[in-house]
Amino acid sequence: MKVRAWATPSADSKLAPFTIDRREPGPSDVEIEILYSGICHSDIHQARGEWGRSDFPMVPGHEIVGRVTRVGAKVSRFKQGDLAGVGCMVDSCRTCSPCTEHHEQFCQVGPAWTYNGTEMDRKTPTFGGYSTHVVVTEHFVAKVPNALELSRAAPLLCAGITTFSPLKQWKVGTGSRVGVCGLGGLGHMAVKLAHAMGAEVTMLSTSAAKKADAQRLGASEFALTTDKATFKTYANRFDVIIDTVSAVHDVDALLRMVKPFGALVIVGIPPKPMELRAGSLVGGNKIFTGSSIGGMKETQEMLDFCAEKNVASDVELIAAEQINVAYERMLKNDVRYRFVIDAKTI
Amino acid sequence: MKVRAWATPSADSKLAPFTIDRREPGPSDVEIEILYSGICHSDIHQARGEWGRSDFPMVPGHEIVGRVTRVGAKVSRFKQGDLAGVGCMVDSCRTCSPCTEHHEQFCQVGPAWTYNGTEMDRKTPTFGGYSTHVVVTEHFVAKVPNALELSRAAPLLCAGITTFSPLKQWKVGTGSRVGVCGLGGLGHMAVKLAHAMGAEVTMLSTSAAKKADAQRLGASEFALTTDKATFKTYANRFDVIIDTVSAVHDVDALLRMVKPFGALVIVGIPPKPMELRAGSLVGGNKIFTGSSIGGMKETQEMLDFCAEKNVASDVELIAAEQINVAYERMLKNDVRYRFVIDAKTI
Repeated sequence: MKVRAWATPSADSKLAPFTIDRREPGPSDVEIEILYSGICHSDIHQARGEWGRSDFPMVPGHEIVGRVTRVGAKVSRFKQGDLAGVGCMVDSCRTCSPCTEHHEQFCQVGPAWTYNGTEMDRKTPTFGGYSTHVVVTEHFVAKVPNALELSRAAPLLCAGITTFSPLKQWKVGTGSRVGVCGLGGLGHMAVKLAHAMGAEVTMLSTSAAKKADAQRLGASEFALTTDKATFKTYANRFDVIIDTVSAVHDVDALLRMVKPFGALVIVGIPPKPMELRAGSLVGGNKIFTGSSIGGMKETQEMLDFCAEKNVASDVELIAAEQINVAYERMLKNDVRYRFVIDAKTI
Repeated sequence: MKVRAWATPSADSKLAPFTIDRREPGPSDVEIEILYSGICHSDIHQARGEWGRSDFPMVPGHEIVGRVTRVGAKVSRFKQGDLAGVGCMVDSCRTCSPCTEHHEQFCQVGPAWTYNGTEMDRKTPTFGGYSTHVVVTEHFVAKVPNALELSRAAPLLCAGITTFSPLKQWKVGTGSRVGVCGLGGLGHMAVKLAHAMGAEVTMLSTSAAKKADAQRLGASEFALTTDKATFKTYANRFDVIIDTVSAVHDVDALLRMVKPFGALVIVGIPPKPMELRAGSLVGGNKIFTGSSIGGMKETQEMLDFCAEKNVASDVELIAAEQINVAYERMLKNDVRYRFVIDAKTI
């Protein structure tokens, strides 16, 4: 089936209208009419070839919410008309130990990423959510609860699960003390989710201008990481810090604010190695770790949690023709906090 | 009470015979006649002022095994003639949350270190195990099981607990795959302890000459970290790597061998910051952490475990007058695997 999309033909081009083929739904496939598609910072990195392995033409987009139009004969969890979500993956081997343990993102064969990748045949290129339809095998389609506002739900499929998963892994709950470093697309979700889990959330930011917004999102405290006193005031304070900063930064300083046995979890990927003192970990048995999206089981838990707690992303809805402008604005951090494409305009 | 000791008067001096005062045992104190005192690499660092805060004269030594000679009226766990062990701490505040949670090493007031520190009055200097007697408050004295060979038990009080604690924290047990990086005082204990816990142990070393010894200690596999193929062969392999290397090294490479959700635990403290790529943590939700000795409850568990499993340190017993030569040999890694001073010679 030929469908409309927005694609970039090369790393130094702008995105423009394009036509792609979507397969006819097989027995286990779900065909989805896309309603909303979020724009993730990694879309820019890959569209511009900044991560070293970009295939063109590229249709970015891995924060997809839509409505089911057709299902294959073996599909049991979806029927025509259901709401559906697709995130960063559209398939995996399903048999390796990470896959069978519900961590498909760490599939030993390598997952089929939603775009800039291939299906599991390792030949057929995948195209993402900046398009009108997508066909995905049922296991990699999440149910989107009716209670969620759909345009605001799209970013949950990447920004939401990326922050939900480490908060769950590190057992954040009522009374936990959580720091969130950096208030962008990921940071604003981390604040909302940690607050909804009952944690006492402190926003750690370089910009005093973000204080009011941080509080509106659910942070009870705000501290400037440009102020050295912050690292003393909050020394050994946090059970968990979710670190969303994607530039090289001082992780030793952040670790000083983690309490013994607590965790600093990085979800951004700074482009260069960072310096770290072993003493920052040994003193207090502190944990420095990372977190990469989440498996399909946890993605469903996240969507259900968001519906129950009325959590969604703060978004700016745009038409497809604004994608290139949106990219430029994102590079200036001029978005609160996620652009979402109205797929009717694609 | 005046007792004999070996001390260094300054960072650039050798150790020599010295006399120190030990307090009369108070109601909660245990007086111990020292039988054996291990030499830890940190003794050298502190005796030579390499860690920045050294008080002189200094009597090093925090791997102490001896026999109880007197106890205070309130002491309930020890009586005259019992075997006793003292490690890196001789007191702490006992009321902060790390203390009440059995992690006295992270006391928020700061523990009283066994030497090169002060008692909790923050005035009275502490003197370590290179002496004939020590007086320590009961809570910081461990019971040494009779089954242990005493000279070989002394290093358990630091090298033993330093490696036992992270193996327990990261739930090493039957069938766990454990890597141990570096075969020295800490590494040889990590191999023995992980093996005794039922793990499949791989020695990761820069020296092929250590293969036979690693196998004798309990490693079922041996791999050279100087061979790039090692990092592919063992990619995503280990539940836990205990990293005992105290020089700056490539932790990204070690993290490649940790499986998703697994942990690289550093117990050495390289003198300079190390480089780390965030992607090494994010890809696989991998954990980089450190571990600092252990609390008194866990120290007792470790001694009991060692007695049950017949685990002790490989030692070279020396007379006190050999301490300075031993230091020089340790700097050349010429010890298998711990020097222990026979306290009769002090």
